[in-house]
Amino acid sequence: MLSSYPHSLTDSIWMNRALDLASLGRLSTRPNPAVGCVLIKEGQLIGEGWHQRAGEPHAEVLALRMAGDRARGATAYVTLEPCSHFGKTPPCCNALITAGIKRVVIAMIDPNPRVSGRGIAALQESGIEVTQGVAMKRAQQLNKGFVSRMQRGRPNVSLKLATSVDAKVALANGQSQWITNALARAQGHLLRAQQCAIITGIASVITDDPRLTVRLDDSAFYAQGWSSAGRVEPMKVVVDSRLRIPLNAKLCQQADALIIYTTRATLCAQADKVAQLAAKGIKVHGVDCDPQHRVNLVSVLAHLASHYQCNNVMLESGGVLAGAMLSIDCVDEIHWFSAPLVLGQDAQSCFVTQTLTQLSQAPRLKLVEQTMLGDNIYSRYQLEKE
Amino acid sequence: MLSSYPHSLTDSIWMNRALDLASLGRLSTRPNPAVGCVLIKEGQLIGEGWHQRAGEPHAEVLALRMAGDRARGATAYVTLEPCSHFGKTPPCCNALITAGIKRVVIAMIDPNPRVSGRGIAALQESGIEVTQGVAMKRAQQLNKGFVSRMQRGRPNVSLKLATSVDAKVALANGQSQWITNALARAQGHLLRAQQCAIITGIASVITDDPRLTVRLDDSAFYAQGWSSAGRVEPMKVVVDSRLRIPLNAKLCQQADALIIYTTRATLCAQADKVAQLAAKGIKVHGVDCDPQHRVNLVSVLAHLASHYQCNNVMLESGGVLAGAMLSIDCVDEIHWFSAPLVLGQDAQSCFVTQTLTQLSQAPRLKLVEQTMLGDNIYSRYQLEKE
Repeated sequence: MLSSYPHSLTDSIWMNRALDLASLGRLSTRPNPAVGCVLIKEGQLIGEGWHQRAGEPHAEVLALRMAGDRARGATAYVTLEPCSHFGKTPPCCNALITAGIKRVVIAMIDPNPRVSGRGIAALQESGIEVTQGVAMKRAQQLNKGFVSRMQRGRPNVSLKLATSVDAKVALANGQSQWITNALARAQGHLLRAQQCAIITGIASVITDDPRLTVRLDDSAFYAQGWSSAGRVEPMKVVVDSRLRIPLNAKLCQQADALIIYTTRATLCAQADKVAQLAAKGIKVHGVDCDPQHRVNLVSVLAHLASHYQCNNVMLESGGVLAGAMLSIDCVDEIHWFSAPLVLGQDAQSCFVTQTLTQLSQAPRLKLVEQTMLGDNIYSRYQLEKE
Repeated sequence: MLSSYPHSLTDSIWMNRALDLASLGRLSTRPNPAVGCVLIKEGQLIGEGWHQRAGEPHAEVLALRMAGDRARGATAYVTLEPCSHFGKTPPCCNALITAGIKRVVIAMIDPNPRVSGRGIAALQESGIEVTQGVAMKRAQQLNKGFVSRMQRGRPNVSLKLATSVDAKVALANGQSQWITNALARAQGHLLRAQQCAIITGIASVITDDPRLTVRLDDSAFYAQGWSSAGRVEPMKVVVDSRLRIPLNAKLCQQADALIIYTTRATLCAQADKVAQLAAKGIKVHGVDCDPQHRVNLVSVLAHLASHYQCNNVMLESGGVLAGAMLSIDCVDEIHWFSAPLVLGQDAQSCFVTQTLTQLSQAPRLKLVEQTMLGDNIYSRYQLEKE
């Protein structure tokens, strides 16, 4: 019997604990979702677990192991609908059923439309009472990238901006280090650490020669209440329509983590360069192009989702790539760090987009969070979808 | 005897009331400062007053009239050092002395360096105890424009910006109505109402044909706790180096309130246009020019202070004039209304300044206030002076 409402306060409390556990996997579970599980019997916590890395046990299995025989008759709080299929590990539904769990409380159903609801059905068929939707919003936020990949076939796309108060990312001569302060840059690294990939444009590679690595001590993660155990460094993605990347770029030193997208035409025309990059272990992909013979960014995102299982990606680029991604409506949220200095008209804009002729054509944002970082302002915006 | 410290809590409480009264004159006292006075005897309020308009009685006189003979032996709380000179009205010091006031508490001394301290000296010479500095910060903020004119020989200069989130004031084609929302525009009118003059550039006049009037019902002022009695409409100032203003511009319909600044060379070269404008009652002044043959803005501000007794002026212009005013370090604060839409690189920047080659050259701001106005953000910045 599926009872959706009312959810008791007890359910909320234990589900929040399960979500706290799930969140410990935010830097390590990808491409899997972050999942936590708590087992409660007669008001007592008898087992709990969280998924740490792909290929390792799921949260439910770890919690059942901790509880042992006491699991019989207990209630399980799981942040995501338990799986009912054989993946790298056996289905968690079976484990819950076998252990004699009496009731399962679920925060959100599996976002994969092909399997969504099957876990719940399997549990119910075994006579287990299922409640769903407890702390659903929090669960969806935690795994928004996984939801995006499952439901839209592309990652959740964040854009990071570090600008002056007049929204400039660099002086006309390219100088940009540093517009924002050290607190803003540290926050930027925390954002990076949560991504499957960081995307940049070839112009930024040529001008700034960035590493795009996460440069934080473990203590910075602990201070956030995060776990850095098993942390996976994000992949680096360069959009490079004419394959201009210098072989001595710092990114090319991280060959294993580097993915380059170019056009199919360039892939054919520059076979030598492709071979040189491949010899270093760098992955080069050719995708279709837009009318300006630039890499089709929609194809890049689809490929990152399907081929590399990217849930969350963050764009750290100049205004051209940022403007292009915005124009095709592929930016989901913006992490905007703004410093209180004025760089003036000639400095480089954060969004290079087509000329608008009507205000009604302008993309609209929604401010969802804002904090001061010293004298810099951090604002998180979501794109208003029509 | 002058006792500066400690100020009792009682002094703070009555001085705040005097400042509340003074603030009622914020829309009407110019070019005079806003001043309030409270008379207290044996813990009871026996008289109070505030200065409403130039030429009308000062706050102290009104308070003494209310108190009558009871004023003997009372304490007077005055937000600004009482005057000791004959202006349009007799000196207030004399009135306080004659009435037998025993003690005078002053928030701030007269900012005019030529008379500063003379009022206090006159009171003390008559045996009155004087305390100063109570709620000084609030008093200075209330009359910051008057302080600026007295001490720097120029008005306090505010810049109003209404931009997109990427700091654009208009599309490339000039469209700018409306980037910000109705709440932001109403707030803009409240700011306007507190100014002695609104300054704009000829480019804005030609493109937008603005009126620059305060378009608010009295109820809007009452809702703020302000008084609109005797409200003085701000003057309008156009910076027009080549005297291109169309005779049919809406601003020319408000001839009495309109002041045009051009260069001395233009004043000679375009005598006919000057005569046409003068025939309408419009005031045209020629000032010196900068190396680009544009009106020298420092001279404009000095003239507005000396000739028109402007305490507070607000710049509402495009990026060229705003950038020029910023570049000569003549912007004191920025009222920035930002709407959550992206207009892109080709739209018009809010600051057109010279190209910077080092980030260290950039003007720096300090955020002092920020509030949401619906989905728009109002931020007040002060310029960081070196």
